Amino acid sequence: MSELTITLLAGGVGGAKAAEGLAASQYANATQIIGNVADDEEFHGLWVSPDIDTLIYSLGDQIDRQQGWGRKNETHQVLSELNALGKETWMTLGDLDLATHIYRTELRKQGVRPTYIAQRLATRHGVTLPILLPTDDVVQTRVQTKQGWLSFQEYFVRERCQPEVSAIEYSGANIAKATPEALSQLTKSDVIVIAPSNPIVSIGAILAVSGIQEAIAKSGAYVIAISPLIGGKTIKGPADKMLESAGKSIDSKGIYQCYSSFLHALVIDDADRNDVPWLHDQGVDVLVTNTLMKSTQDKQRLMTKVIEFAQSRRNLRAA
Amino acid sequence: MSELTITLLAGGVGGAKAAEGLAASQYANATQIIGNVADDEEFHGLWVSPDIDTLIYSLGDQIDRQQGWGRKNETHQVLSELNALGKETWMTLGDLDLATHIYRTELRKQGVRPTYIAQRLATRHGVTLPILLPTDDVVQTRVQTKQGWLSFQEYFVRERCQPEVSAIEYSGANIAKATPEALSQLTKSDVIVIAPSNPIVSIGAILAVSGIQEAIAKSGAYVIAISPLIGGKTIKGPADKMLESAGKSIDSKGIYQCYSSFLHALVIDDADRNDVPWLHDQGVDVLVTNTLMKSTQDKQRLMTKVIEFAQSRRNLRAA
Repeated sequence: MSELTITLLAGGVGGAKAAEGLAASQYANATQIIGNVADDEEFHGLWVSPDIDTLIYSLGDQIDRQQGWGRKNETHQVLSELNALGKETWMTLGDLDLATHIYRTELRKQGVRPTYIAQRLATRHGVTLPILLPTDDVVQTRVQTKQGWLSFQEYFVRERCQPEVSAIEYSGANIAKATPEALSQLTKSDVIVIAPSNPIVSIGAILAVSGIQEAIAKSGAYVIAISPLIGGKTIKGPADKMLESAGKSIDSKGIYQCYSSFLHALVIDDADRNDVPWLHDQGVDVLVTNTLMKSTQDKQRLMTKVIEFAQSRRNLRAA
Repeated sequence: MSELTITLLAGGVGGAKAAEGLAASQYANATQIIGNVADDEEFHGLWVSPDIDTLIYSLGDQIDRQQGWGRKNETHQVLSELNALGKETWMTLGDLDLATHIYRTELRKQGVRPTYIAQRLATRHGVTLPILLPTDDVVQTRVQTKQGWLSFQEYFVRERCQPEVSAIEYSGANIAKATPEALSQLTKSDVIVIAPSNPIVSIGAILAVSGIQEAIAKSGAYVIAISPLIGGKTIKGPADKMLESAGKSIDSKGIYQCYSSFLHALVIDDADRNDVPWLHDQGVDVLVTNTLMKSTQDKQRLMTKVIEFAQSRRNLRAA
């Protein structure tokens, strides 16, 4: 038990829920998180890292739980003034949240590694679960639509996922270097959990960084993914539309296909139990359970179940 | 009347009061302001330009009139969060004010001339009196104390003007280039008014930019300065201490000496009328009046009187 090493690959809201579940579980000390930096974007000259901040704010209990992102007890004085100054302010950035971006931007300008900046922010918010970055380099998800190529936030926030997506690319991923921390953590992992995040823009962007998939393969870890779909729908975010545009079906099968080259198990909701025979035919283990995470208990229960399942199957395979 | 060209050289709080007086007077359309950029400083990676902002906020009626700087109805969410993140926050920067600094910093980073940035900010705040910068280059007032060299804000805000000042320098002034706008405005001026600002760190820093003093000389303008002292004391700021450290007396004579090479007239308060004979001996015109500016009426009255005085003496000299 004490020697178990768990890595969670996490996007934003769904990733943070899984992270909170592990933090509340008996596996907290065994777990490290690798977050997504590919929806990072500069606004008003400040470097905003939405998924990493959602992880930090969630684990530090500073998140606005109603909306799943941003700070609780937030105000918006700066943004309203930037709007008065004629700036586009469709990206909602509260005052407390802006302090994070100001802090991060100054340190980046000073040449501090983004990995260390995330660590400092996490520490300041009392987060004990280590949050690693897949890369310190700039990787940005870009979405091709009829309006042309959009940044992820332009597509997601400004356009509210309305434009049809014809292609997605992870700009910079091919030359980005994985961080030694992420590679070392992955390589020594016994269980790698893929959070119920968007398989294309969140997890896909982590996997696109060169060296990450190789490290997963090298680890020999048991890789278990939690489907972000319940009854063919996402709880949050545009995973369904993006699966469709990627030519994948919007169900457990589509999720499986995103990870098929290295996946050992898929966790699906009770509502999707009809997909079990097809999944078994692919040779993948399946855990069917209630995957909806609302309360801390829900999160802890699901993540404990996921790790226990992974452990038992891993032991079976070793036997 | 319509052909009169007035330039106000202005520092922060005293400069803004003089600017407001001119803006409220019949001379508004004839006036342009040259502000001070040498107490600019970067905080949290953001470029802060206190004197220029005090001018803009005052003329735009956005100033906190109680303290004379910063925005009215201001909040401090970002700063309190930066403090929680471990940053030094002795420089009070409110949320509305930070929007200005974020806006300015982004444009500077994009290579926009600081002159244009100040123009855009002034326009956004409804300021009609043009505010010019003496230079687009970085000039920074530095103050030598027993603690070593301090930036002006470190000396003024952090140390509350307590350390003894042994020297003052305008770092970068010797290589800074005056803006064409400031040179052109000065050269065509009929009357140049020096606001009741700190003659050493505010006005001195404007005059230190190469080309500025030459343009004043070339203009043939009538140069009239308003003493920032009333009865040997400053209304605001460390002018008295700085005069002392510069080896000048803390009275009308000391102020005169700062400008003696190009000054035609000095405006002093009724409380300082005993200095008139000495000043007349120096060959400088003297206007004795109530120089305290509290209400808009005070400001308008004083500045109207100053311009009328300058006009009449200038006509006398021309005759």
